[in-house]
Amino acid sequence: MLNPQLNKNGELQHLLTIEGLPRSIVTHILDTASSFVGVSDREVKKVPLMRGKSVFNLFFENSTRTRTTFEIAAKRLSADVINLNISASSASKGESLIDTIDNLSAMHADMFVVRHSQSGAPHLIAKHLRDSGQDHVRVVNAGDGRHAHPTQGLLDMYTIRHYKQDFSNLTVAIVGDILHSRVARSDIHALTTLGVPEIRAIGPLTLLPAGLEQMGVRVFTDMNEGLKGVDVIIMLRLQNERMNGALLPSAQEYFKNYGLTPERLALAKPDAIVMHPGPMNRGVEIDSAVADGAQAVILPQVTFGIAVRMAVMGILAGN
Amino acid sequence: MLNPQLNKNGELQHLLTIEGLPRSIVTHILDTASSFVGVSDREVKKVPLMRGKSVFNLFFENSTRTRTTFEIAAKRLSADVINLNISASSASKGESLIDTIDNLSAMHADMFVVRHSQSGAPHLIAKHLRDSGQDHVRVVNAGDGRHAHPTQGLLDMYTIRHYKQDFSNLTVAIVGDILHSRVARSDIHALTTLGVPEIRAIGPLTLLPAGLEQMGVRVFTDMNEGLKGVDVIIMLRLQNERMNGALLPSAQEYFKNYGLTPERLALAKPDAIVMHPGPMNRGVEIDSAVADGAQAVILPQVTFGIAVRMAVMGILAGN
Amino acid sequence: MLNPQLNKNGELQHLLTIEGLPRSIVTHILDTASSFVGVSDREVKKVPLMRGKSVFNLFFENSTRTRTTFEIAAKRLSADVINLNISASSASKGESLIDTIDNLSAMHADMFVVRHSQSGAPHLIAKHLRDSGQDHVRVVNAGDGRHAHPTQGLLDMYTIRHYKQDFSNLTVAIVGDILHSRVARSDIHALTTLGVPEIRAIGPLTLLPAGLEQMGVRVFTDMNEGLKGVDVIIMLRLQNERMNGALLPSAQEYFKNYGLTPERLALAKPDAIVMHPGPMNRGVEIDSAVADGAQAVILPQVTFGIAVRMAVMGILAGN
Repeated sequence: MLNPQLNKNGELQHLLTIEGLPRSIVTHILDTASSFVGVSDREVKKVPLMRGKSVFNLFFENSTRTRTTFEIAAKRLSADVINLNISASSASKGESLIDTIDNLSAMHADMFVVRHSQSGAPHLIAKHLRDSGQDHVRVVNAGDGRHAHPTQGLLDMYTIRHYKQDFSNLTVAIVGDILHSRVARSDIHALTTLGVPEIRAIGPLTLLPAGLEQMGVRVFTDMNEGLKGVDVIIMLRLQNERMNGALLPSAQEYFKNYGLTPERLALAKPDAIVMHPGPMNRGVEIDSAVADGAQAVILPQVTFGIAVRMAVMGILAGN
Repeated sequence: MLNPQLNKNGELQHLLTIEGLPRSIVTHILDTASSFVGVSDREVKKVPLMRGKSVFNLFFENSTRTRTTFEIAAKRLSADVINLNISASSASKGESLIDTIDNLSAMHADMFVVRHSQSGAPHLIAKHLRDSGQDHVRVVNAGDGRHAHPTQGLLDMYTIRHYKQDFSNLTVAIVGDILHSRVARSDIHALTTLGVPEIRAIGPLTLLPAGLEQMGVRVFTDMNEGLKGVDVIIMLRLQNERMNGALLPSAQEYFKNYGLTPERLALAKPDAIVMHPGPMNRGVEIDSAVADGAQAVILPQVTFGIAVRMAVMGILAGN
Repeated sequence: MLNPQLNKNGELQHLLTIEGLPRSIVTHILDTASSFVGVSDREVKKVPLMRGKSVFNLFFENSTRTRTTFEIAAKRLSADVINLNISASSASKGESLIDTIDNLSAMHADMFVVRHSQSGAPHLIAKHLRDSGQDHVRVVNAGDGRHAHPTQGLLDMYTIRHYKQDFSNLTVAIVGDILHSRVARSDIHALTTLGVPEIRAIGPLTLLPAGLEQMGVRVFTDMNEGLKGVDVIIMLRLQNERMNGALLPSAQEYFKNYGLTPERLALAKPDAIVMHPGPMNRGVEIDSAVADGAQAVILPQVTFGIAVRMAVMGILAGN
């Protein structure tokens, strides 16, 4: 079966997931992003790559932060951006997802940036566009359910490459609620694709999914063990709804066992970097001394995220 | 009395309703739209006709779909677009409609696209602008109460002309909740203006307004009778609030009597086209086999709708 | 201590409050605004002063009207505008104000337009940007708590100068709920800075703050007394929440004592002008005969407000 993200020439047509993406494409995105990092520093921050193209931000699940990064990226590529918060509109009128997509396509959309609470929604859209001969429209997954958040995965890779250059000798630890995290899933696929030899998952048993070992991930429930000698620490956000539920005793208890403190950070390599997809829960999964410390690269992640999204959109629009 | 939509030279100044609009103006809009249909297919989808002009989308009633079509049309004309969802703002602070309009006019608005739940609101605004010497501001009615939805009427005419060329020998049936439909009202006026010899209205008695015959419309309560030999079928959306109310027994019952099925469609001419303003209630007013069938032109309607709205805005801005 | 709004060369870096702003800077803003008043009348209303710059409208408190004026001003300067309604997003996820700012800064924001219900929030942001070495980002206070609304103060000064030319011989009365009004506070500082010899505050004792006399303001609880011989009347909006609370008996009672009627207006100089920041409560603080009368300059205020905001943003972006 063809990879649904690639066209017949093997070029990227949609960005749905990092799983199964050839390493050459991942590297091409990171290389392209690096050419855009400078654009945001220029006096005029725009390039005309998508002038006259219409990008629709389709957010079936609210996320101002992610929507904003895509909106900025698209505007810096000179695209026209239309923001649609779908829960508040057609969905409430009972229109199906596919009817909504067909309608927007008929308005000559060039790209859909899709956020959806249901895993697989962007795939469904991409498949429908292909099946119905609307091959000119591109789809970018901006986070679907627990499944994938590929642009976050890519910006994380960009950040790691920026600080560590070479993936081939790294140990990377992902810490927290891996069970519910599309970021963790995308990071694991990306790290694997780029040849990282050791990927670790650290968290309480109730927040670790089955099958991690089969993906080549080493699992730790003891954070002090898991952090020993790592080069990169990717902290995950603990969702508010987990904090006083059945899976965890309390936020305080969580911090005691899995909060990243300066003491714990000292167990990693001295030049280890600390990442977080944001927004942070200070005092829950991460201590402020670490979040604001010299090893944190959390704000550079945000900056690189704009360039990576520009790269993805620019490449898709060009293919 | 002067037609409030025309200036002293008989040029279109506001688009408030199709009723009373000279045939030459309707035809001019359709001709202009046809020059814009190609724009959306170009690599760069923009024309500079409204560069530096400010278009305000004033939606006193929520409609993401219609707002989006106007936003896209305005951006393709290179206008700056400001979206205002008024229910959430000044209206809640007790400011009057006229004060809101005066304030936005004072910000040098060039055009108001107005959607309002009350019939006549766009007329009121246009009249106020004229009376207060603010003649440089244009008004487009994007749907007011049960009264009119002229751009929908025009895009429906564009669609019919595209597929049937000549209006002078057509039979057109409008099916459904005609009583509450501003689309039906605008379509009937447009079809009459363009010289369609036979217009039919099909629906249950409780959803047919009085006075249709006086407008030259043939009324049918039996759908099978009404569809016989028609060239064009315009299905109307059945509003959710009608479905379990006093006017209708149930959605199932409605579909049984007035749903457009392949069997019923077969009663029309073999080359009849099926239209729908969207969003569709599949299985209520229309069967999916028809909605997705070869005779449906529902998605082309959406595409033509962008071009028609570009034409209306471009013409108004130029006059 | 350095004025936190100025850089080392004494140039405006942020606009946080009119208090303490040198007269030369206030005058420079008004002079610059006057060069922009013509821009909105031109066929193409744009100047390229902020092309490629990203302006973030950060509205922690909802205000469609003020947000719209900044959005229009920024777009006429050719900036890219990102609207963020923060209450609905990160704030609800428990992210701190400073983390939100750092994130948006990392996206290479050039300017934050900040509206916040808490006094001092824009100062806090400006201080943080300075302390963390993010000196390239500019902050404009679009209204913070009861503290300041400097662009409203400046547009009021622009309006007064437009109609009265010289500040040095004026008597200006501010009428209404001065206690809760950031507009009143900004106006008093601006009038003082520009050398207005007599500033009056008129209102019920319960709505007058302590310390007005120390600011050089003459206080009147009798409106007829206070209006005698004034050149300028600035009416304040009576917030709905005051109308049936402990501070006021009722809206009717308020109008009887402090509503601006034609009779009361006759007590002012014959060429006195009437101002109001909007939105007006007709029949509460102002009679419609006055609001729509020949002496009202309320809509010109709105027009000048766009030019003043263009001036502020343009100056900040250039420094």
